[in-house]
Amino acid sequence: MENFNIQAFIPLFYLVWSDDNLTDIEFETLKSFINSQTWLQEKDKLYLLTKIDKQNPPTREEIIGWKNQLETIVQNNPNISSIFDIIVDMSTASKTALGEFKNDFLQLENDLGVLGEEVVSQFKSKINLATSKSKTASNFDITKITALLNGDQAEIIDKVKKVISQPEFAYYTEESISSYRDKVYEWCKILANENFGNMAFPKEYGGGDDILNYFSIMETLSYHDLSLVIKFGVQFGLWGMSVQLLGTKKHHEKYLKDIGSLKLPGCFAMTETNHGSNVKGLETTATYDHQNKTFIIQTPYPNAQKEYIGNAAVHGQMATVFAKLIINNHDYGVNAFIVPLRDSEGNVLNGIKIGDCGPKMGLNGVDNGTIRFDNVIVPKENMLDRFASVNEKGVFESPIPSDNRRFFTMLGTLVGGRIGIPRSALAAAKSGLAIAIKYGDQRKQFGPDGESEVPILNYRIHQRRLLPHLAKTYAVHFALQYLTKRFVSRTEADMQEIEALAAGMKSYSSWSTTAILQECREACGGKGYLSINRLDRLKNDTEIYTTFEGDNTVLMQLVAKNRLSEFRKSFGKMDSVGLIQYVYENAKTVFSEKNPIATRRTDEAHLLDKQFHLQAFQYREKSILASAAKRIKKLIEDGLAAYDAFNVVQHHMIDVAQAYLERVTLEQFLFAIDTVEDKAIQAVLEKLAQLYALAQIEKNKAWFLEDGYLEPVKTKAIRKMVNQLCWDIRPDAVALVDAFAIPASCLAAPIAFQEQK
Amino acid sequence: MENFNIQAFIPLFYLVWSDDNLTDIEFETLKSFINSQTWLQEKDKLYLLTKIDKQNPPTREEIIGWKNQLETIVQNNPNISSIFDIIVDMSTASKTALGEFKNDFLQLENDLGVLGEEVVSQFKSKINLATSKSKTASNFDITKITALLNGDQAEIIDKVKKVISQPEFAYYTEESISSYRDKVYEWCKILANENFGNMAFPKEYGGGDDILNYFSIMETLSYHDLSLVIKFGVQFGLWGMSVQLLGTKKHHEKYLKDIGSLKLPGCFAMTETNHGSNVKGLETTATYDHQNKTFIIQTPYPNAQKEYIGNAAVHGQMATVFAKLIINNHDYGVNAFIVPLRDSEGNVLNGIKIGDCGPKMGLNGVDNGTIRFDNVIVPKENMLDRFASVNEKGVFESPIPSDNRRFFTMLGTLVGGRIGIPRSALAAAKSGLAIAIKYGDQRKQFGPDGESEVPILNYRIHQRRLLPHLAKTYAVHFALQYLTKRFVSRTEADMQEIEALAAGMKSYSSWSTTAILQECREACGGKGYLSINRLDRLKNDTEIYTTFEGDNTVLMQLVAKNRLSEFRKSFGKMDSVGLIQYVYENAKTVFSEKNPIATRRTDEAHLLDKQFHLQAFQYREKSILASAAKRIKKLIEDGLAAYDAFNVVQHHMIDVAQAYLERVTLEQFLFAIDTVEDKAIQAVLEKLAQLYALAQIEKNKAWFLEDGYLEPVKTKAIRKMVNQLCWDIRPDAVALVDAFAIPASCLAAPIAFQEQK
Repeated sequence: MENFNIQAFIPLFYLVWSDDNLTDIEFETLKSFINSQTWLQEKDKLYLLTKIDKQNPPTREEIIGWKNQLETIVQNNPNISSIFDIIVDMSTASKTALGEFKNDFLQLENDLGVLGEEVVSQFKSKINLATSKSKTASNFDITKITALLNGDQAEIIDKVKKVISQPEFAYYTEESISSYRDKVYEWCKILANENFGNMAFPKEYGGGDDILNYFSIMETLSYHDLSLVIKFGVQFGLWGMSVQLLGTKKHHEKYLKDIGSLKLPGCFAMTETNHGSNVKGLETTATYDHQNKTFIIQTPYPNAQKEYIGNAAVHGQMATVFAKLIINNHDYGVNAFIVPLRDSEGNVLNGIKIGDCGPKMGLNGVDNGTIRFDNVIVPKENMLDRFASVNEKGVFESPIPSDNRRFFTMLGTLVGGRIGIPRSALAAAKSGLAIAIKYGDQRKQFGPDGESEVPILNYRIHQRRLLPHLAKTYAVHFALQYLTKRFVSRTEADMQEIEALAAGMKSYSSWSTTAILQECREACGGKGYLSINRLDRLKNDTEIYTTFEGDNTVLMQLVAKNRLSEFRKSFGKMDSVGLIQYVYENAKTVFSEKNPIATRRTDEAHLLDKQFHLQAFQYREKSILASAAKRIKKLIEDGLAAYDAFNVVQHHMIDVAQAYLERVTLEQFLFAIDTVEDKAIQAVLEKLAQLYALAQIEKNKAWFLEDGYLEPVKTKAIRKMVNQLCWDIRPDAVALVDAFAIPASCLAAPIAFQEQK
Repeated sequence: MENFNIQAFIPLFYLVWSDDNLTDIEFETLKSFINSQTWLQEKDKLYLLTKIDKQNPPTREEIIGWKNQLETIVQNNPNISSIFDIIVDMSTASKTALGEFKNDFLQLENDLGVLGEEVVSQFKSKINLATSKSKTASNFDITKITALLNGDQAEIIDKVKKVISQPEFAYYTEESISSYRDKVYEWCKILANENFGNMAFPKEYGGGDDILNYFSIMETLSYHDLSLVIKFGVQFGLWGMSVQLLGTKKHHEKYLKDIGSLKLPGCFAMTETNHGSNVKGLETTATYDHQNKTFIIQTPYPNAQKEYIGNAAVHGQMATVFAKLIINNHDYGVNAFIVPLRDSEGNVLNGIKIGDCGPKMGLNGVDNGTIRFDNVIVPKENMLDRFASVNEKGVFESPIPSDNRRFFTMLGTLVGGRIGIPRSALAAAKSGLAIAIKYGDQRKQFGPDGESEVPILNYRIHQRRLLPHLAKTYAVHFALQYLTKRFVSRTEADMQEIEALAAGMKSYSSWSTTAILQECREACGGKGYLSINRLDRLKNDTEIYTTFEGDNTVLMQLVAKNRLSEFRKSFGKMDSVGLIQYVYENAKTVFSEKNPIATRRTDEAHLLDKQFHLQAFQYREKSILASAAKRIKKLIEDGLAAYDAFNVVQHHMIDVAQAYLERVTLEQFLFAIDTVEDKAIQAVLEKLAQLYALAQIEKNKAWFLEDGYLEPVKTKAIRKMVNQLCWDIRPDAVALVDAFAIPASCLAAPIAFQEQK
């Protein structure tokens, strides 16, 4: 056992000398340990003690020698998980012979304040750190990821890609906004002819009766010009679906076919200059005239005009106009009416005054305009009367008595827009990432002294800028698939939850896209600033996604309020005061059971464990929700009006919504990965999920530290692991954006294709 | 003393009952305390005990009554700082009579785990929380802030504002990029005629010899069209100053006057397609021909062309071209040469091939182009020979022997660009904030039930989005003033530090502007998307500021490396290993002396104390720097090449640079405030400085928590204080952007002026 006597201490010596911070006390501990080991011979003891003499430290070469020895052992034996395992492996003695000393060594580890697992993982993660060596690899079948992403909609997605890859869909690059608008309109006609526009309309009106396909069309079109997508969405989604969903059979028969074929271009005229987010406050009036069985549509003052209305400035012939219904001086709240704007030659009708919103930051292919109504008379049947109507006697009728609830029910039916937009945003993020990652893989700058320059994607900071975003984009993809499926199979019971989820995912995805395209632009440097490389349009076109279909900040408040009411619901009738306290404490208890170890664990297996990720996300979601509830309760008890109390906690409410959306997104990404059978695909997607999860935990780490759910040693380890995952994913990054299968003519940016010399 | 006996306990009762988390033990503590007080009569004791009976809690009204009583006292007596002070104030007994019980009560506070100062501050900060009541006020003389911001340059600033407010400076709003470029060129001529362009040139060549004025001109022009600023900067800053600073008398005499008058438009041709950040790797060659005493300028292959060169596509007649000097097949590194591009009629000369960079995300009024040289011959005197020359014998001569050092010395003289750009970015941020804050003050949306709608700037989240940015903009203003002054009075000894500061502030300011304009756009919703409201141009024009004059991410690495070398320098010749360890530990010790209290203190006076802020910033700066040094050392000791080690820590290095820049910025803001005499001005600027400081600490709070410098109780209090400061500053926000004194015709955005109805 001579050999063993010395060998057994190598891991400990290495630990002692490699750690700059080791204290005298720890040296003494090790000395005592050596002296107290009865199985050691005196000469061994003396020899060993020379190795921990602070006056005679080992040479640098000796330390490196130990380290190499340890690395070899750990890397050749994946099962090693403790220092004692190393000792066993190094030793010439039999395992059973050594077993009796195990407890001694474990006690020593403890006395030295050393975590065995951590020490081992330090030797394990011996990845290649040479900057110049990392490069694009081909580790899996890209088409299998594409198939997973496309799911059941693969057929329609391929069809759309084929259409937008045709020569007539060459991007518009001239300077005239007017011709750009016409070009986009022409493209829409081609899409209508392909029966893309009416995809969600009932079959009896020429439609495809397939809302899943409709959303996939929206998303796939978004690889092309985003003005086209929005123009398409205004015509078929907003105008068409408002007629379909707010109208009744007589409207469907009269309009849907022509809307679907784009024979009847129209608008969705809800927003007014003075009322955007607060649409309940719209001021346009529709006054019922019982004598003539008509409505008089009126803009009461200039800033009550409809504003930002797509299709209004040039092409729209009709509009669904949202206006307060007035009957006999009584206000019945906001309802919807079909109002003609132009004749079929495009001449603006009497009483209609159209303004042009003029040049915009982006989406200049869409003709947004303002509309004012001066005594415009429309027949009674133009009221979209699914939820409310005026009967033969001129009396208001509705199955939903509350004006407020009726209005929000109407809005609820239109929630599809909050699915189409985030999916379009997602596609734009994919385009941006494809451009930036493919450029970063080829663009070389700087390098080791005297050697070739290195692709900028090999730089850690470049990876940090792009790869967590790539992971998030994959995660959001599956979350949006989930949202879509929930929407399609919705019932009245879960409608509120789905509305909140849609509002939330719209915000989460559009904000994500804004942040991603910002990074992509910067990551492509000067090339990213040239319009030809398309980040310009992608960025500017999607910039408004965070505002339209509901301002994100406002939507996030709604989402948080929905979470608060779900939270209250799920605890039924308990007294609200004690209840909130209870849930808060309960959440703490449930999770803190795992804490004493979990808050400090930093070994690789744990940090990469999806159960850890999911629990952390869930814990954060519940705790933030409970603490927001508690805070609001306290403010109200302190005498604040609810309106003011909610104002005080607005910042907190954003976190409530965010934590909820992050949990849903991670969960759906993990569910999707579970369905994958191909091992290589599963492996790379798992890495992406780990990166998504840890990058979010890192982003929120101040909260986790404040809460005590994580300790500093762990958040620091997480930061390192995020860096590590970026480095590990880098060789697959190009394949992962190729898997989006964006048509080359759509991606278009020369920097995504050209060789750099 | 009867009255006192009861009154004295009100603060404690309130504490006990208002805190949901109070434990049974704490109830018992209070009971024991009451029972043990010999000065209390038995009936008083019995009465008091009824007030802390968990079975018979006080009514909500009673608790609120106590609270109101306490608030009144605290708010009327600013000197109150402990619970005992309250008791004294409430009591009918004399102060001296009460004095003897003071220690008893202090002990009780301690036993209850209550921090007196915190409790008091809770009653102090009884600000008005009614959302609808907050509004713009006029608390100080705006012109005094303007005067402070303008400083000694007030005269030239006013002159520039006057010029750009003239009718001929009406913004260009047509669609043609070509006419836009011409318009910008015309504007530049007007500015040249005003002697703005040659402001920094020597007087003997018609200049103003005033670099301080020149930078103020750049900054002030940036309230107008940013294409104009960049075109101006290319002509007079890059082209002009390269001739001035890299050339010698013969060049000055020949060119400077015509450059200053814009008779000779020119370019600064450094960047190549394949070499942007890594300019040392430029591949254009200038081969010396001794027989003809000429240089042959050559683009060796297409992607070695000059790219993004301002003034190249249309107007430039000459260029300072950076090229590798080759003499007798020996490469002497990159030097600068004047190369004619066009004749005075604008015809491109033989051997020159100009490309057009085409439409860009922004700055479309600047004619960026590519330049290729095919065997272009220029005379020997065209070499800008301040730092190197070819002598009469055709032999290379330079006072700086190292090619590398010579090149970086040349670049160093051009550091002025890294002052002009961040100051231009600052002005753009000011414009964006002026637009968004003035709009937010007027735009109303939502409101309390049944009441008028409320300005959106009254919403906490809206304040959170904009006001920390306002504070940062003020802070950066003073930091850039400091940078400018350091630059003007530079010596060789501090040149490296100033170069790093300039590189850093260029990054800090331009990233800040990108983030600010993003928030401003979102905060203005749909209106922010319309080009007429100018956030479009501001955002897109400044987007490239984070890239040009050096990619921010690359510059931040340089800044961090400079900090590391300063760090090494300041500890002289000590052994590097022990040294780093020493400094690291030392930094910890120095600051941790203050820690036991400081990490937990949450009272208002402390949280708002600038000493606390500055120490936190300094501590972070030093600690991050030391830990980065330590990490690099370890990686290199582990056998990594320095190049790879620096790659591993790139993410950390960004933090090193960031922490340094934040400290400088806070410090300079505080110095500037110290010079203010007007109390009202000082007060509002102090609030801004507090908001800047706390918002940065909040942003970095995960780091402070990881480090242990702050504890969760404190970071949570800081979050609340940031909210509070936003709320407090909101009434002054409009005045604070008015103080920028941006000419109305430049600000232009209708939403910054129009009343909303």
